This record gives sequence, structure tokens and C-alpha cells, in this order.
Amino acid sequence: MALFSNTTLDSLDDLLVQQIRDLYDAEHRLTKALPDFADAATSPELKQAFSRHLTETEKHVQRLDEVFTLLGRKPEGSACQAMKGLVKEGEQMIHADGDADVKDAALIAAAQRVEHYEIAGYGTARTFAEHLGHLDAARILQATLDEEGEANKTLTRIAETSVNWNAAAHPALEPRVL
Amino acid sequence: MALFSNTTLDSLDDLLVQQIRDLYDAEHRLTKALPDFADAATSPELKQAFSRHLTETEKHVQRLDEVFTLLGRKPEGSACQAMKGLVKEGEQMIHADGDADVKDAALIAAAQRVEHYEIAGYGTARTFAEHLGHLDAARILQATLDEEGEANKTLTRIAETSVNWNAAAHPALEPRVL
Repeated sequence: MALFSNTTLDSLDDLLVQQIRDLYDAEHRLTKALPDFADAATSPELKQAFSRHLTETEKHVQRLDEVFTLLGRKPEGSACQAMKGLVKEGEQMIHADGDADVKDAALIAAAQRVEHYEIAGYGTARTFAEHLGHLDAARILQATLDEEGEANKTLTRIAETSVNWNAAAHPALEPRVL
Repeated sequence: MALFSNTTLDSLDDLLVQQIRDLYDAEHRLTKALPDFADAATSPELKQAFSRHLTETEKHVQRLDEVFTLLGRKPEGSACQAMKGLVKEGEQMIHADGDADVKDAALIAAAQRVEHYEIAGYGTARTFAEHLGHLDAARILQATLDEEGEANKTLTRIAETSVNWNAAAHPALEPRVL
């Protein structure tokens, strides 16, 4: 999300456009970050999930182009401060040293934070679009919201069926304190 | 979440501690930001929700202190880049000009992104704690996770029963393009 001190929110239309610009910037940042997530992952299933989500994310950008057209606005993003931070966190995971399975778990932890951000953002934008009667825009936003939800569930499944078990199998260097 | 390039993730214990340090920093930032959210809100119900969540957030910090103790670690945070960005976005909403109802909708939009970040973070940490057999820590993290989920639902309810309707009642300055 990106609002500046001189931003004026006179109507819900203003806020909807601001939300779409925020998501547009966020998705663009994500298309640049996801290939590095895929490269850094060791689990083949996780690599594939990141690569598949890159394809989806490129589609999400195109859908936002359509939403801008439906709202009669030129497609443009505004710097999303939260996604900047989320991507920075992801990069820190990507460059961390250590065990491959634990690093996979760390990549999932970072990616699920990203998915949750997008779920919140698309849910809000979809609801505003519905309130304003922009029903075609709302349907497009809902389609992406559904895919973000599925992407998050896929990450949970990969974590819970393999990655977390493999990561937990590596004993801590220090005695466990219970 | 905050990991640095020299971070080493040799075990899931390392990653759990890192996740807890991230949440500790995030919650501390939130205790400083929430009073400004409450001040900026116009809807009495929304003001109350932010104030109530401040009290909960202070409790969440104390719970993380307990988790650190259970893990045999000194309580300390590490700078959470995403929460820095999320709070920055919130501040931009707080200082935005415009209609009071629309601004309330904007504050909810920002706050729900925060809640979703925390839901992702606590869900991950709770799961890691379970895998490592830190069942008391997992129960504490689950308690906070439940409250973050409830806080998010409360914001949705306030948005959907009053704020969004009031905000949508203000006509856009430009003709709506459909």
C-alpha cells in the first residue's frame, strides 16, 4: 500500500484506485523476486510451486491492467512499502547460510507472509469494488484472491507433508530447552 | 521478519527463534502505532476496536517474553522490515486528507494487512514449535494467533456493517466509469 501525506481520499473511488495501484506495484515486485525464491529452494516440489506462482503472478498483473481499464484509469503503481519490506525479508532468507531443509522452511515462512499481504489487499479491493458497483472489476479481483488463497494452501501443504519434517529432523546444536 | 546475510539456519530451532524475534519486534512497533490509529479513526466502534487491540498487543508482547523463557532464550527483537513498511503505510493513511468515512475505510485496509502479516507469522511459529515438541510455547502462540484472527474479523465486521457503506455514500468527484 502506498499513500503519501498529500493523498486525498474524498471518495471510496479514490481509495479503490489507491488500493489497485498498491497491488500493481506489489505484484510487479513479486514477479522480480519469485525467480530467486525458486532458485534458492531445494525441494523440487517447492521450486515448482514458486515457478508456478510466478506464472500466476504475471497473470495477476495483466488482470490489474484490465481493472484499471474498467475503472477508466491509466495503469500505474505506487511504491508499496510493505511489499518492499516483505521482499527484503525474502532476500535475507534466500542469502541465509545453513541447512537446505531449514532454508526451505524459511522460504515458505517468507512467502506465506507475502501471500497473506496479498489476500488482505485483494479482499479489501474486491469489497470496495462491489460497494461501488464495479462488478466486473470485483469478479477479476476475486479470481486473483482465490489464486492467492490456493497458493498459500499449497505452501502449507508442502511445509506440512515434507519440508517441516525434514527441517525438524536436524538436531539443534544446543540442547533443547523445554 | 528479519534475517541478515550472516544468519545461519542450521536447525529448525534457529528458525523458530528467528521467527519469535521477528514477531517480538513487530508487536513492539504495533504498540507504538495503534494509539495513532485510534486517534485518527472517526467511527467510535473503530476507535474502540483499535484501543482494545492495543491492550491485546501489549499482552502478546508479554506472551512472547514467556515463549523466549520456555525456549531458554533472552527476549530480544530483530528489526522486522515488513512491519516497518506496514506501519509506514498506516501512518500515511493516518495523515491522509479527505472524507472521515473514507479515511476510516483506509485505516481498516491498513490494519487488516497488519493482522494478516501477524496471522502468517504466528501460524508459522506455532507450527515450528509443535514440530520441535515445544508444546507449551505452541499453545501460547496459538492463543495469540486466535486473537489476531478475531481482531481481523472484528475489522471486517465494522467495515461491512457501517464504515464501507458510509464511505460508498460519498459520490466520486468524477463520473463513475463502468
